[in-house]
Amino acid sequence: MTAEALLTDFYELTMAAGYFACGKASDTATFDLYFRQNPFRGGYAIAAGLEDAVRAVLDLRFHSRDLDYLAGLRSARGRPLFPEAFLRYLAEFRFRGSIRAIPEGTVVFANEPLLEVSGGLIECQIVETVLLCHINFQTLIATKAARIWEAAGRGTIVEFGLRRAQGPDGAVSASRAAYIGGAAGTSNVLGAARFGIPPRGTQAHSWVQSFASELEAFRAYARCFPDDCVLLVDTYDVLASGLPNAMVVARELQQQGGRLAGIRIDSGDLAFLSRRAREILDGAGLAHVRILASNELDEYAIEQIMAQGGRIDSWGVGTKLVTGEGIGGSALGGVYKMVEHNGRPKIKRSNNPAKTTNPGSKRVVRFYSEDGMMAADAVGASSEDLAGGEVLIVDPANPLRRKTLTETRRVELLHDIVVDGRLVCDFPSMEEIRDRRAAELDRLDPSYKRLLNPHEYKVGLTLKLWRLKEELLERKA
Amino acid sequence: MTAEALLTDFYELTMAAGYFACGKASDTATFDLYFRQNPFRGGYAIAAGLEDAVRAVLDLRFHSRDLDYLAGLRSARGRPLFPEAFLRYLAEFRFRGSIRAIPEGTVVFANEPLLEVSGGLIECQIVETVLLCHINFQTLIATKAARIWEAAGRGTIVEFGLRRAQGPDGAVSASRAAYIGGAAGTSNVLGAARFGIPPRGTQAHSWVQSFASELEAFRAYARCFPDDCVLLVDTYDVLASGLPNAMVVARELQQQGGRLAGIRIDSGDLAFLSRRAREILDGAGLAHVRILASNELDEYAIEQIMAQGGRIDSWGVGTKLVTGEGIGGSALGGVYKMVEHNGRPKIKRSNNPAKTTNPGSKRVVRFYSEDGMMAADAVGASSEDLAGGEVLIVDPANPLRRKTLTETRRVELLHDIVVDGRLVCDFPSMEEIRDRRAAELDRLDPSYKRLLNPHEYKVGLTLKLWRLKEELLERKA
Repeated sequence: MTAEALLTDFYELTMAAGYFACGKASDTATFDLYFRQNPFRGGYAIAAGLEDAVRAVLDLRFHSRDLDYLAGLRSARGRPLFPEAFLRYLAEFRFRGSIRAIPEGTVVFANEPLLEVSGGLIECQIVETVLLCHINFQTLIATKAARIWEAAGRGTIVEFGLRRAQGPDGAVSASRAAYIGGAAGTSNVLGAARFGIPPRGTQAHSWVQSFASELEAFRAYARCFPDDCVLLVDTYDVLASGLPNAMVVARELQQQGGRLAGIRIDSGDLAFLSRRAREILDGAGLAHVRILASNELDEYAIEQIMAQGGRIDSWGVGTKLVTGEGIGGSALGGVYKMVEHNGRPKIKRSNNPAKTTNPGSKRVVRFYSEDGMMAADAVGASSEDLAGGEVLIVDPANPLRRKTLTETRRVELLHDIVVDGRLVCDFPSMEEIRDRRAAELDRLDPSYKRLLNPHEYKVGLTLKLWRLKEELLERKA
Repeated sequence: MTAEALLTDFYELTMAAGYFACGKASDTATFDLYFRQNPFRGGYAIAAGLEDAVRAVLDLRFHSRDLDYLAGLRSARGRPLFPEAFLRYLAEFRFRGSIRAIPEGTVVFANEPLLEVSGGLIECQIVETVLLCHINFQTLIATKAARIWEAAGRGTIVEFGLRRAQGPDGAVSASRAAYIGGAAGTSNVLGAARFGIPPRGTQAHSWVQSFASELEAFRAYARCFPDDCVLLVDTYDVLASGLPNAMVVARELQQQGGRLAGIRIDSGDLAFLSRRAREILDGAGLAHVRILASNELDEYAIEQIMAQGGRIDSWGVGTKLVTGEGIGGSALGGVYKMVEHNGRPKIKRSNNPAKTTNPGSKRVVRFYSEDGMMAADAVGASSEDLAGGEVLIVDPANPLRRKTLTETRRVELLHDIVVDGRLVCDFPSMEEIRDRRAAELDRLDPSYKRLLNPHEYKVGLTLKLWRLKEELLERKA
């Protein structure tokens, strides 16, 4: 994905032009990027998309073709929409602000900033949409993958979604995020090549149909791919035809010193068929043959199949993984809100307390119990020292709900990523991000991972931040 | 979107390698691309994505970096996965087959081929995933846009989805498809520039927050954009603050010989607020000021607001449009099935009659009543002459359900797009596609457009095709 300066909402440019014309080009601001509800009505999310988002911001340049397009836009009265002075400003535009963010692969929760952008008002505004686009989508998909991975008892998940993904890059971004969240491979070769994900896939029903018999089709595939031979056994009938034919090939491979890697079942009752196939394979001395399953799977289907004793070694999950389908729709509703302007904290009030913003630049500190499990997160002012001592947190949606945190193990979640336009960190490798995700989920109690009605993890404002919020609300009221 | 040969499912390549190794490189085949259920449990779909899909197929080349990647893949035993001879074949690969398709913007229905690909078995197989990816997604979004456009009484729809779209290109493809389906503009500047869509957008709440007062913020915007000034009136309170301040600016613009273009309401009860705002504006001689609304809209919300007398001139629709959210998930389940192999019709049977494929190369003919409305579609063998006479169609899911079509107005839906690897048509412009969509929806009875329980449009197999299907099923049984 190359940086495209025009990959932005039009209003970012009209606002930028307005700020420029009003003499606000040297105003400063801070914005928070966060979501208000965990995706899928779940108990957590997995942060993802940061590297793509930050690279897009740092590479953002208005090239001459972009400026020509903008220069050609006309107002309703036929006058140039954007003044020439503003277009000259855009021609020189570089992001010179700063970004702090929670690393990819971290467990995160609603209402804590995943990202804080500070710098000139115009530059902070211009990067809004591209940041949201990358982080909303990849966080959604990484979370979906983590839910599926957990539902499968941390088994092998292969992402099969390209054909029904939301456009070519919807697919490629999804492959990356699914790998972060828990997938072990992808069918998408471009995603595999770009991110170092193991590519996976064998044959479709059309392969079997193009031979005179299923057995001939299986033999042909085994001849071509003897070391990685997975046979699709449901073109005609899994138990009456596909499995017996696959077992013939398994024995032929054994005679040549090889092994059948697996069978794939893509229709029917996956719990029943996999149990029965496992018994038959084991009874025939073919315990090494793995069983792969696919067909409209998601975390709910997998949980049911697991509960009914399904014997599936590898799950192919497509559409519902890469589109992040689930309760609440296939999108994460991340927002980007101004929290400071020219050094002064700002608030946007709403009748809905969950939509009233939290003012000012912040820090997010995670508290861990003695056993290493996550206990609660405190969102405080960036000027606060939360490294030691008791910390009282307030639930901003219900300020009577308070909790005193005394845990001594604490970790700051927001890290410096960009300072004054310069990248100040090395982005972690995909494997490091995956390791982080697995370690993070180890430290999250299972009650927060339930698919239905998960326990609500505590994220509160420090008393100092809560009082600042109250003060600003009173001043406005 | 440049063509990326690796934007494919891995199994397309393993199957291709297998066919190549088995001496099937000169086999021929025909595949149908179709969906089995209309999206959103609706009564129709709008075909879209063809141009992008076909260009991707025609531009498909395996470049040296792609071949290097494939050459580096290893089997479970560490041997090269793909033989060198196959990689040399890929290096020379061009799509030299043929594609027939239903033009973009056409009303289409479940179980009729949107696209037929014929040619060498390998080339038809290799292009499967990229065709599905483009056509599934864009057809989903064009259909969603059409539903929203109809629900809004064919009013003005502006697509606002970039920030929560499924990745950058998920957004750009969605902007294109939404424009085909009925959107009149987009917030996505890159989509606007690429497809000639009017870009739309004015300011966010952060604009208002960055000024000392709402009135000052409005005045500043009006100074910069006097000809296209739409003011966001819900930062504080629509009726108590936003609207009165906007009216001050409207009068100031009038004194300078200008006009306030509109106000935008982005929260609250849009039916109530728009009615009240309309009354107040009209009472103040500001009947020309348009009312724009946004906030989690879709066809259902719009239908309700219209039914309750909402006075909205322009609807900003974001997340739910560009992610195609709705009943059945955010994906169209298009499939790509082999219907002919080496000149012989093929069938894939299933216990589910809706999943048993229809064999052979086909034609699709649409019958129109005397009044010009669509009456029914017949899917027949490509060898059949359906230009005149009575045509009996059979519902393959319920073969007792038959209907004799006598209408004389008939149109062939599948057109030659690519013949032997050469593009044989000019792709229509976006405006031509939009005109087609509007004209097509004019000819579709409203009963098929209902959001809830729409009437089911008849799509049947000709008797000849039905008998071929029966014969193949009996032969297999």
